[in-house]
Amino acid sequence: MIKEPLLWHPRASKMGKVTLVGAGPGDPELLTVKALKIIKNAEFILYDRLVSKEILALFPKNTPTMYVGKEKNNHSIPQEALNELLVTKARQGLNICRLKGGDSFVFGRGGEEMLTLKRAGIDVEVVPGITAASGCTSYSGIPLTHRGISQGCTMVTAHGEKDLNLNWEQLAKLNHTLTFYMGLGKAEMISTELQNHGMPASTPVALIENG
Amino acid sequence: MIKEPLLWHPRASKMGKVTLVGAGPGDPELLTVKALKIIKNAEFILYDRLVSKEILALFPKNTPTMYVGKEKNNHSIPQEALNELLVTKARQGLNICRLKGGDSFVFGRGGEEMLTLKRAGIDVEVVPGITAASGCTSYSGIPLTHRGISQGCTMVTAHGEKDLNLNWEQLAKLNHTLTFYMGLGKAEMISTELQNHGMPASTPVALIENG
Repeated sequence: MIKEPLLWHPRASKMGKVTLVGAGPGDPELLTVKALKIIKNAEFILYDRLVSKEILALFPKNTPTMYVGKEKNNHSIPQEALNELLVTKARQGLNICRLKGGDSFVFGRGGEEMLTLKRAGIDVEVVPGITAASGCTSYSGIPLTHRGISQGCTMVTAHGEKDLNLNWEQLAKLNHTLTFYMGLGKAEMISTELQNHGMPASTPVALIENG
Repeated sequence: MIKEPLLWHPRASKMGKVTLVGAGPGDPELLTVKALKIIKNAEFILYDRLVSKEILALFPKNTPTMYVGKEKNNHSIPQEALNELLVTKARQGLNICRLKGGDSFVFGRGGEEMLTLKRAGIDVEVVPGITAASGCTSYSGIPLTHRGISQGCTMVTAHGEKDLNLNWEQLAKLNHTLTFYMGLGKAEMISTELQNHGMPASTPVALIENG
């Protein structure tokens, strides 16, 4: 059933693999033991904008690395090209570490990279990282859940569109700790929308920047 | 304003401290570098039921440890007594590791322990861990967020009361990945409630046991 000529996919004697690794919020001590091991053993590391300088300093000196970060209005490489690059490099037989800030599966677009790789028949492993909502609140002493106060926690992103297309009605009435990633620039909009949808103005709020 | 005689709080020459450490989902390689360091350097370790055997095996042989887990209908120690025990041990000058499965601040009652310790004037640090919702889905290849499919993720617990007192209306309409901790025994109730509140029966679901 495979229609593509095999020559299009010249496989190295050793087939490569990709590990999607969450680097956590920035403190290198919040890397998992597994993440650190994969960084140390990788043959090629592709890393994002949100990977901290302290973590970059842990990359072995002889390992080839590539910056594939996305800054506002300045993406070093479009997501689709990055997905293809991962496939190409894995087919060269490389053991690749794809390192992302926080966690690959929480606003990290790790799912898209995983799907492209799986469709190309490439082995993918996912190593979770401490996501910002957890790391930043832990270091600030703010529990994400607390008996009698917050019965759950919800993570949404304020990144992207000009007008946030979120389910404000539901968010305002959940009675959860709500965490807005990249929310600083839209703090006023978030506050207004939540109050317009019934959240009391007395609800405590914390703003954490560069967590 | 302090009414208690100081003699009630005989402080050791070295004041102790408590670090609330999240152990992650069980794989010892998903401990953070910091968590492992704290386990290795602690003078006393109090650990929960959900800390895995593989992680228990990492405890240094000469470190005193205490099991303070809560099994269904069989709590080894009530939460209030545990809070007080942490205070007492810290006042003995010990460097204490309070180790919990997952993350202390996500359904871990870490906030209650932190408050008791802070009110007693004891130094507390919180080290986040990989929470089950993240660890289990990463190892299962299920992104918690995915462009065009799930715009956020929400964590709630199905532990505790017979009838779950959750905001079903909001949960059903969030368009998030919903994760229910300890949800297996109540899977049917969860499914029924979500559908009764408008979630399509075609919504994909994953059940992960012993993640």
